[in-house]
Amino acid sequence: MRVDLRLNAIVDPERAGGRDLAELARLTAEGGATLIQLRDKHSETRAMIATARAIKQKLAPLGVPFVVNDRLDVALAAGADGVHLGQDDMAAEDARRLLGPGALIGLSVKNTAEAEAAPIGLIDYVGSGGVYATMSKQQKNPPIGPEGLARIITVLRRRAEQSGKALPVCGIAGIDASNAAPVIAAGAEGVAVISALSLAPDPTAAARALREVVDAMLAKRGT
Amino acid sequence: MRVDLRLNAIVDPERAGGRDLAELARLTAEGGATLIQLRDKHSETRAMIATARAIKQKLAPLGVPFVVNDRLDVALAAGADGVHLGQDDMAAEDARRLLGPGALIGLSVKNTAEAEAAPIGLIDYVGSGGVYATMSKQQKNPPIGPEGLARIITVLRRRAEQSGKALPVCGIAGIDASNAAPVIAAGAEGVAVISALSLAPDPTAAARALREVVDAMLAKRGT
Repeated sequence: MRVDLRLNAIVDPERAGGRDLAELARLTAEGGATLIQLRDKHSETRAMIATARAIKQKLAPLGVPFVVNDRLDVALAAGADGVHLGQDDMAAEDARRLLGPGALIGLSVKNTAEAEAAPIGLIDYVGSGGVYATMSKQQKNPPIGPEGLARIITVLRRRAEQSGKALPVCGIAGIDASNAAPVIAAGAEGVAVISALSLAPDPTAAARALREVVDAMLAKRGT
Repeated sequence: MRVDLRLNAIVDPERAGGRDLAELARLTAEGGATLIQLRDKHSETRAMIATARAIKQKLAPLGVPFVVNDRLDVALAAGADGVHLGQDDMAAEDARRLLGPGALIGLSVKNTAEAEAAPIGLIDYVGSGGVYATMSKQQKNPPIGPEGLARIITVLRRRAEQSGKALPVCGIAGIDASNAAPVIAAGAEGVAVISALSLAPDPTAAARALREVVDAMLAKRGT
């Protein structure tokens, strides 16, 4: 499934400043988020499903797709568009088999070794980083920077071309409107953003500002 | 799906004394466990799926069914026979819709209010407790004892009869061969056991001892 990865807004109860996640999803989508991801590592399953359903309902009139991080059970129960998988989550092969060809499957890729091993034929997009330092997630490795991102994208681009497939990549970690441009310059099709949207005074305005930077850089690149 | 609930062995990495869970499942099944449940609240999804697949493989030649606690995604990926759901897990309605009529769905019921609310038509069995004090799980409420279990079973039995359905119940928490008899005397069809099997020097012998008590009590009851 072809996905618009320009602004991937990730909503996480631990980085939402107490805001309602479904409302946050709606606000960022109205500002131009092109893909919403629910990431919740600690809630009970029933609560996650309720949140996912609420997000889906808010996004339906806006036509913005919605994936669930890791939890395919939550995605299935809530009727989300797909899942975003980390390297320790379900294998893409299993997820594709269980969700079918129409589902959206994203994969996190943190280095060139993971880029070489990524199951290109089974996934729709890649989230790659951590590009910059961030507070949203325990970072085990130092930030890779736009240079590290460019190296990963080079590998993914080569492999995607070999399989005759488009595989958009978004950079992730520590990205906001002030530092998004180098991420696109590094070859990414977009940015994945948590705190700079969820904790912004006005998430819609923050999304709009990010989209302006991303869109301008993509236009410059002639994409 | 009709399930033999006489000895429900639950394997949990936090209560396995470092033992391999698949091997533990096999050992208890060889001793007479009639249903195996994998309960894992903390591992990464990929690791859970690997464990579930290993359990399934070990149990296949023994014909003992296997359910996954909470995680329907893991159950689906590994091809388990079903799921066991707590009150904070996925709703039985969603699980049944996603797994189909042939899957095994169990539900935890902790009190008579939950017994009154249980979706009888959607589930195959109930695990009820905590009957005795246990170290296996943070117990929020005091043990209900065989008397409390009997009250819950009375409610479930009435409701199951009204829907013309058999709904076996197993007691759970702190059960071993020394205290299993009152659980069956209270009306349960079996016992769910973690530590008394997983941490036993010989899990097969421990399973056999538990089955002897359960089978003797069921025979006495004329079941």
